[in-house]
Amino acid sequence: MKIIQSVTAMQQLAIKLKKKGRTVGFVPTMGALHTGHISLLKKCRRENDIVILSIFVNPKQFEPQEDLAAYPRRASQDILLAKKENVDIIFHPSVNQMYPSRYLSYIEVEKISDILCGKFRPTHFRGVATVVGKLLNIVQPDTLYLGQKDAQQCAVLQQMIRDLNFPVKVKILPTVREKDGLAMSSRNQYLTAQARVEATVLYKSLLHARDRILEGEQNPLRIVNGIRTMIMENSSGKIDYVDCINAETLESLNNIHGKVLIALAVWFGKARLIDNIVLTVKRRLPTLNKA
Amino acid sequence: MKIIQSVTAMQQLAIKLKKKGRTVGFVPTMGALHTGHISLLKKCRRENDIVILSIFVNPKQFEPQEDLAAYPRRASQDILLAKKENVDIIFHPSVNQMYPSRYLSYIEVEKISDILCGKFRPTHFRGVATVVGKLLNIVQPDTLYLGQKDAQQCAVLQQMIRDLNFPVKVKILPTVREKDGLAMSSRNQYLTAQARVEATVLYKSLLHARDRILEGEQNPLRIVNGIRTMIMENSSGKIDYVDCINAETLESLNNIHGKVLIALAVWFGKARLIDNIVLTVKRRLPTLNKA
Repeated sequence: MKIIQSVTAMQQLAIKLKKKGRTVGFVPTMGALHTGHISLLKKCRRENDIVILSIFVNPKQFEPQEDLAAYPRRASQDILLAKKENVDIIFHPSVNQMYPSRYLSYIEVEKISDILCGKFRPTHFRGVATVVGKLLNIVQPDTLYLGQKDAQQCAVLQQMIRDLNFPVKVKILPTVREKDGLAMSSRNQYLTAQARVEATVLYKSLLHARDRILEGEQNPLRIVNGIRTMIMENSSGKIDYVDCINAETLESLNNIHGKVLIALAVWFGKARLIDNIVLTVKRRLPTLNKA
Repeated sequence: MKIIQSVTAMQQLAIKLKKKGRTVGFVPTMGALHTGHISLLKKCRRENDIVILSIFVNPKQFEPQEDLAAYPRRASQDILLAKKENVDIIFHPSVNQMYPSRYLSYIEVEKISDILCGKFRPTHFRGVATVVGKLLNIVQPDTLYLGQKDAQQCAVLQQMIRDLNFPVKVKILPTVREKDGLAMSSRNQYLTAQARVEATVLYKSLLHARDRILEGEQNPLRIVNGIRTMIMENSSGKIDYVDCINAETLESLNNIHGKVLIALAVWFGKARLIDNIVLTVKRRLPTLNKA
């Protein structure tokens, strides 16, 4: 396993691998690897000649008041985990390598960056799109692996890749959860023991919403309010948002129909947790009786 | 010579050429090819296995009130010229191919997009960066050829390529001029006979400024004012800007020193013409006498 810190060295190796006809799969991360990341690496390993993992805590996707300095960094543990998954290359650049002095260029994905988490983190998805655009140019993968837990990130990156014609396929893998349903996240370690127990309400509230939809509920506002109430009554979590929207366009819905994303973000102390589910809801449309 | 209109077909061919180890040179244009473009194609032909020319009048780089509809389009003449220069592939997509419905993604290069022409055309360089970013992903060239006439465009694209790590070399070729010094431009054909004669003042004023700097003038403001006066006294041109700045950072100068860009934009009727020169000015710094 190679560990590469230089952008130029990584890019030159990527070009060489491409010329040799190797298929390259890529898993971009901020490190602090958990079972969710591991599931991406395993799938990537099965499907590609070369597996590249990037570890880079990207300052451009943190708002000024956020947890950049405190974000968990444990490269040596991540390296051991990567080795176990037969990763071929870890790309682990410094901030200066990625953002040299007089850095001025950004990728913006309009509209879908401004809703859900974007309302609370106004420059977050610009930072995500920019760093992933850079990483795609450096690593030049055939396939990019992302986790469904970051539903809006997936939507923003898929839109960017389509619009800017990046020559890469995207695969989105299901959210990996703890036994009690809590979505895996590097930020879970910020939770106190009490908050860790309470945080299970997030997935429970999503499943409860799903059941109500399966029973016939069609009103997105009632679904959202049901989730909010369940979280507030069963935990100390502070809700940033709960939303029930079109899963592909992220546009709001009058009526629950088609591919639907139910997504939420809730604070437990210093930990801001996100979670979501996607449902495909088919409804028989009302038909006119023929006289 | 192949003419390709589909983004997917162009991208797949580019990937195939890359795998075969062919070197690809790329000249992006809005068509209406003139001798300036031809000089780029000739250089590109000498240096690469495969020459790709794109012809695309990019709506995203025109402001709403600008000449998008009137911009000269003459594909059949361009195709003949390209054939004569042994171009291998013309990429000639439709607007819908490049900007399908629900298009949302843009590349922004901050600061250097907002000065000079950017003051008068606030979304122009965002449109240029976005379309060239897309074209680089579609065409995947080893080398990109640009003309020095569009000095700010060159600066914005070089910054974007460096910042976002596009795997491409950039070559900037000198401005090609008519015998009387007028810089070649597809917009010159908008000029009336009278304005065509008057427009020669632009390059003359730049050469005059150069002479004054060689004679020792160090004050950028006096240089700018000299150019403005010469244009106003000798033509009906309406000046958008004249500026004398650092050629690499596009930052303003207190003192003419180093690599200096003198750039201007002037309207003659419906034609907005730009021109520039770059000088390297070495000055002996004042020394302290040793007592």
